[in-house]
Order: sequence, then structure tokens, then C-alpha cells
Amino acid sequence: MTGNKIGFVGLGNMGAPMARHLHAAGAEVIVWNRSPEPAEAAVRDGLSRAKSLQELAERVGDGVICVNLTLTDVVEKLVFGEGGLHEKLDPDALIIDFGTTGVPATKRFAEKVNWVDSPVSGGEVGAKAANLTIMVGGAVENFERALPILEVVGEKITHVGESGAGQVTKLANQLIVAQTIDAVAQALRMAELAGVDSGTVREALRGGFAESRILDLHGDRMVRRDFEPGGKATWQLKDVRLMCELAESVGLKSSTLENSSALWEKFVADGYGDLDHSGLFLIYEEGVQNGVEGNI
Amino acid sequence: MTGNKIGFVGLGNMGAPMARHLHAAGAEVIVWNRSPEPAEAAVRDGLSRAKSLQELAERVGDGVICVNLTLTDVVEKLVFGEGGLHEKLDPDALIIDFGTTGVPATKRFAEKVNWVDSPVSGGEVGAKAANLTIMVGGAVENFERALPILEVVGEKITHVGESGAGQVTKLANQLIVAQTIDAVAQALRMAELAGVDSGTVREALRGGFAESRILDLHGDRMVRRDFEPGGKATWQLKDVRLMCELAESVGLKSSTLENSSALWEKFVADGYGDLDHSGLFLIYEEGVQNGVEGNI
Repeated sequence: MTGNKIGFVGLGNMGAPMARHLHAAGAEVIVWNRSPEPAEAAVRDGLSRAKSLQELAERVGDGVICVNLTLTDVVEKLVFGEGGLHEKLDPDALIIDFGTTGVPATKRFAEKVNWVDSPVSGGEVGAKAANLTIMVGGAVENFERALPILEVVGEKITHVGESGAGQVTKLANQLIVAQTIDAVAQALRMAELAGVDSGTVREALRGGFAESRILDLHGDRMVRRDFEPGGKATWQLKDVRLMCELAESVGLKSSTLENSSALWEKFVADGYGDLDHSGLFLIYEEGVQNGVEGNI
Repeated sequence: MTGNKIGFVGLGNMGAPMARHLHAAGAEVIVWNRSPEPAEAAVRDGLSRAKSLQELAERVGDGVICVNLTLTDVVEKLVFGEGGLHEKLDPDALIIDFGTTGVPATKRFAEKVNWVDSPVSGGEVGAKAANLTIMVGGAVENFERALPILEVVGEKITHVGESGAGQVTKLANQLIVAQTIDAVAQALRMAELAGVDSGTVREALRGGFAESRILDLHGDRMVRRDFEPGGKATWQLKDVRLMCELAESVGLKSSTLENSSALWEKFVADGYGDLDHSGLFLIYEEGVQNGVEGNI
């Protein structure tokens, strides 16, 4: 990475450690963050700070700019909106979008600038350990250009197809996660209501056909009633909305997805959004699903 | 096992190899099956055959009788119905029920005779390899009495609680399996409809939070459109009905379970029951869910 100039927009829980890994690998990393504190902390760690997005775009020139933001609207605004990167973006610059951004929006962005969608799985733990799973969509030449950077922050990197394919894959991942959390919650709660210890059930099921990372990790949280995030329910809901948008746009009809979407909407609307997404378990414990207010 | 007399009722895909493992371990295994062929085949392999259930009960005396049948009603009929085991059953005999039998029925049976519910996971492959996962419910003394037999046919054996607890655990397992198959099917089909190769998506997701035995094994079947059973959809539906019965009896309300139940009912009613349960994928490919007849 030595000698490379890399822009990094968005120093949240994921972006902050990822930007530092690139710095540690020898790149000159120029950061920008909406709130100043994370950028100031990055400067203390030896990274460089741009005062504006335009300045960042100018300094990176025809290099690579990483973007790691939560909401599709924010990505669009910071890249293409007034005062955004786009105003000073070199036509040869490449943008790597690490966030989970909507598929139709991603395709639009990729028509305007060089863009690879590179959503990640593995959470804050994976970002810190630099062993993220990365699902990449975009033209081969852009993927190859991004790869040395992806290899610094990730471990399993798959080029899954054209622009948007990385986001499609991430949403497929999130669909399975959202619905498996629900399944494990019902199974463990059903066992408890039937008088069987949920921890014993979880252990008994491991290694069989019901085995999953969700049963292992989130199932354990349910047994212990430990819903400190982790991955917040609000973020899961954001992704559920994106997968519903995608499903509709490609003509996938699914009553299961409609039901799942309604559950996550209600769970967050009822005030549980800051819990870990495994907290969906509570809808079976507290009757949230039936309009009865729960108390945690 | 040498010197032990063990009765074995039900020589289906699972029971036939399990009875033979007990024979190979040195027990005198006395079999009964409704259709004669599997019993005759067992005799050719050195097992003993009873002409009636009463004869089997008499010959086993105060020993152990294994029961491996598909439907709760059939279990009830063969054990407690006219001409059933019960008519000649020694009060000290123990029945091991390897099938997936309803929870309320299991509790009733266990009030009448010595009974351990010992449903298994691992399928025909696990039965042949004698490495089944077994979830056992019943009194400790009955579990301990059953254990040497369970150890011959199984690998991971968990005593999960009182009578019925084994069945509760198995239904928890089946709930997760039924809903995870649905989730993986939607995820892979959504990707295909969005123009992304489902095999690539499956590979990209492995090792992340969406990882599961279902994604691994059944996901692979979906990618290859290989729905030869395996575990038939009709059997999955049978277990879905049992879990709905259990959920209702313990007061678990779940719109997800209602939706899942409706999907499996329709899938089998539409004539797909003999496919492997991973064939549920077809409802997203062929519009089965929307009342459009599919063609395979």
C-alpha cells in the first residue's frame, strides 16, 4: 500500500478500524467524517484529515475513495449531492462502497462513476480483526483495482458479479439472518413454554440439521437474555427494507418476507430498536406481536 | 447387548438399519412390521420375527421394545389399540419411541407404560452410520435403562427432560429446519432473479452469519435443482402440524409459524409432497404460492 493515497468517508464502528488497517498497511489515508471526533481521533493515530469532501476528492485525485455509511440516502448525498465528492471527483477515481446500500441506487451510482459495491459481513469484530467477508459487485477491472485494499480489511473476498451483485448477495445474507433469528427464537421459546430448558435444547440441536451460526451465537444470547448490541435491530430493519425493495423490483413474491418485514417493523416501532437483533426473541416472550407492551 | 432381548416395531428406512445395529451388537432382536417384506429381510439377516405384536410383547417380557413409526395415530394403535403390544405388555417392559410423535400423545402414553421419547435427527444416512443425534425425554431411570441401546444407534444423546421433552426438542429442530429452508430458498431465488448466480451467492455466504447446515446441504440442492428425497416434504409437513399443535397447546402465538404452516400445506397439497423438503424452493420459482400450478 506504500505510496497509495486512499480516501475514507465514514468513520463509524466499522469504518474507523478499517481506515486504520489501511494506514497500518502503508497507505496515506485521508479521512472525512460528518461529526468531527472520529476524524480527530484518526489524526491522532497518524491518518490525514480533509476539511471537506471536495478537498478529499481533490487530494485523492485518480486514486481510490472508500465509503462506509449506513443509509443509502446519505451515500447519495455525500457522493452526488451539493458539496459532495462528485464535484471534485477525478473521472478515473474509484469508489469502494463498504456499506449495505440499496441495489437500484447502487446501479445508478455505478453508471455515473467508477464504483464497486463491497458490502461486508462480520460486524465490528470482523472489522477490528481485518477478517471481514466481502461480497463484491462491479466491472472486473474495478474489482481488480479494489482487491489490494479489500485484502487489507477482509479475509474472504468474492467477486459475485456486475454492479449491484455485491449488494444483492449481502441482502440475501441479511434475509437469511433475519428469518433464522426468528426461527431460532420461536423454537427456543416454544421449548421453554413446554417446560424444557432452552439452553439444553440449543445444545441438543447443535451438530444436527438445525445447526447454524445464528443458533450458536444468537441462540446463546436468547438463552441468556443478553440483548446488548452487537448488531442493532434498527440496522436489521434497514436491511429488511432494502431486501423488500429488491424483492419487489425483481418480482419475488413471498408471504414469508412480508411477514418477516412486518415483525421487524413492529419490533422497532415498539421501541426495541437499540437491542441486538437477537432481541426479536422478546416478541415471543412478551407478547409484543399481539400489541401487548413488553418490558425489558 | 449379548443376552438381551429387544423388540423392534417398524422396519422402515430408519428402523431397518437400526434393528440390524442392535443385532450386530449381540442382542436377540425380535421384529414386527406391518408389511411382511422388511420382516422377512430381517430374518434373512439373522434377526427373529414375531407373528403378532402380542407375541413380540410376550417374548420380550420385561425387556425393551423399540418403536419406529411415522404417525402418532399409528403409534397409538399398535401400542394401545386392539391386538396391540399393550395387551401382552409386561408392566416392567420399557418402550423406546424413536419416531417423531406428538407431545400431548407422548405424555399420555408415558402415564400408562414405561416410555422414553427418543426422536432422532440425522436421517437415513445417520441411521445407517449409527451416528444419530437423539433427544430423549422421560424419567431418569428409564433413560438410563435405554441408554445402552441408544448408544448402539446414536452418537450424540441428550437427556433433555421429562416425558415429551425429547419430542419438544425434535419439534424445535424441525421448526428451525422448515423455516431455514424457506429463508435459504427466498435468498437464493432473489439473487437469481436479480441476475446473480445462486451457486456463487451460496459460496460467498458460507462462513458468515448466514451459515447453516441448511445453506450448505439444502442450499446446494436448490442451486442444482436436485430435489430427489432425502427428507420428503410430506414428512416435513407432518412435523409442521405437530409443532403447530404444540405451539397452540403451550400458548405460543407466531404469525411466522402460521405462514410457514400455510406454505408447507399448500406445497404438499399442490402435489410436491414426494420431493425433498428443499424443493420448497420451487414456490419461488414457479409461482406455486400464488396459485399458479408449477411443473417440474
